[in-house]
Amino acid sequence: MASSPLQVMRQIVQHVSKSKGFDKVIDKVQVVSAVPGKGVFEMKVADEHLNMPGTLHGGLTATLVDVLTTFALLSVEGKPGVSTDLHVSYMKAAKPGETITITAEVLKRGRTLAYTRAEIKNEQGDMVAQGLHTKHVGN
Amino acid sequence: MASSPLQVMRQIVQHVSKSKGFDKVIDKVQVVSAVPGKGVFEMKVADEHLNMPGTLHGGLTATLVDVLTTFALLSVEGKPGVSTDLHVSYMKAAKPGETITITAEVLKRGRTLAYTRAEIKNEQGDMVAQGLHTKHVGN
Amino acid sequence: MASSPLQVMRQIVQHVSKSKGFDKVIDKVQVVSAVPGKGVFEMKVADEHLNMPGTLHGGLTATLVDVLTTFALLSVEGKPGVSTDLHVSYMKAAKPGETITITAEVLKRGRTLAYTRAEIKNEQGDMVAQGLHTKHVGN
Amino acid sequence: MASSPLQVMRQIVQHVSKSKGFDKVIDKVQVVSAVPGKGVFEMKVADEHLNMPGTLHGGLTATLVDVLTTFALLSVEGKPGVSTDLHVSYMKAAKPGETITITAEVLKRGRTLAYTRAEIKNEQGDMVAQGLHTKHVGN
Repeated sequence: MASSPLQVMRQIVQHVSKSKGFDKVIDKVQVVSAVPGKGVFEMKVADEHLNMPGTLHGGLTATLVDVLTTFALLSVEGKPGVSTDLHVSYMKAAKPGETITITAEVLKRGRTLAYTRAEIKNEQGDMVAQGLHTKHVGN
Repeated sequence: MASSPLQVMRQIVQHVSKSKGFDKVIDKVQVVSAVPGKGVFEMKVADEHLNMPGTLHGGLTATLVDVLTTFALLSVEGKPGVSTDLHVSYMKAAKPGETITITAEVLKRGRTLAYTRAEIKNEQGDMVAQGLHTKHVGN
Repeated sequence: MASSPLQVMRQIVQHVSKSKGFDKVIDKVQVVSAVPGKGVFEMKVADEHLNMPGTLHGGLTATLVDVLTTFALLSVEGKPGVSTDLHVSYMKAAKPGETITITAEVLKRGRTLAYTRAEIKNEQGDMVAQGLHTKHVGN
Repeated sequence: MASSPLQVMRQIVQHVSKSKGFDKVIDKVQVVSAVPGKGVFEMKVADEHLNMPGTLHGGLTATLVDVLTTFALLSVEGKPGVSTDLHVSYMKAAKPGETITITAEVLKRGRTLAYTRAEIKNEQGDMVAQGLHTKHVGN
């Protein structure tokens, strides 16, 4: 029986967030919707996600961009690729208890590279962060 | 009795890595040396630091750039500032058991912004990653 | 008599591209449409825009991101601000004779910083480049 | 008779800056010194290099990063490669009449990608800009 893109994305998130590696830091992420090459995710900001001033940590924001765009890529490639460049612009702090929505998508699959983007918004629809992530996927 | 820059940096790392927030992911980081505005750090790559393919996770690499350049900034500013942009170029995978060296420094303190850079190398001196991190610090 | 956002954007482009400074390199840019904080522009790739291999030069692509997001900002701020960070991901070459479309918009105006994005596509709708541009605008 | 790295770099700059393409915007650049994979360049900021507020244009700064790191790459590869990502952090304005020094170097040559960096300083040694430039070079 075939799985829907949403089921596939949920399996990816469940599998990865149970890892003993660093991916477990995204274990609070939920899949909202998915189509091949794109996923919409949610995460409620918790104490374990905070920086010293008490807002969403920039390192976790970068990790969300890295991991969730990789999931969008996995959903069409079947392999995660290797990061070459990651850029994040931080626009607004997110506070504990807020739920952020992360939209991650593959913008372009070239001959050996894939270009992806993630957009993070808060409940009011304000932009929290914007990320671009380039990966080497191979032929 | 005055503290040396090295003692100050060790206090920052100890304080922050005991946090209940996201900074605890860098609790394996050791300070090698420090001068005001610059620190050299080491971390032995462990299982908890890995991505799915089994090498240093790109999200943790970005977190090391974020946090350790902030420590370099803290050592001269006394406040961490707020990230505006973070860029990481990933050049070589780091494997479990390898010790990486991270050199983090403030390149320029402008009127309201601070520009920092981190360079990550492996034991052979090969470049693992290079990061630029811009923060709003205020007057 | 009030000017429409489209008229305002056309005046900005005409004024700037007649400058004796570096902005004259974008003198082939046409305004397609504009609303406050966002503009859609077109440029036919000509010989003067090319790199050594004969496609749209990456430096000009970066300049288009820089200048056209600044125009989007000017349309709501009345001042250009000062660049702090510019990131461009290059996805596909553009050839002489092709017309590229550049959509430039302000994503977020913070207390002292503005965050903008530009998206460049070719006539087939393929992504040519994606840019993020952060500027200090002040209070 | 073999050419020195300095002679090779000067030939590259002369050849490219006489192009009818976009590279001619860097025709005021002089080579100060060169070793394989690295060049030091100088440029006196002139009127044609300015933005609207009258300082070195951010698009030209990005072009200098793009082109001069490509020259550093050319000096060891014999081919320019194709840009995948370019990041520039702008730290200080440069004024007309000032001479800026650009140090461009290859940080790492991977299997298919090359990672480069450019550092731009003014006559006082202040950092003007810092750039990272990733290129696909192939095997």
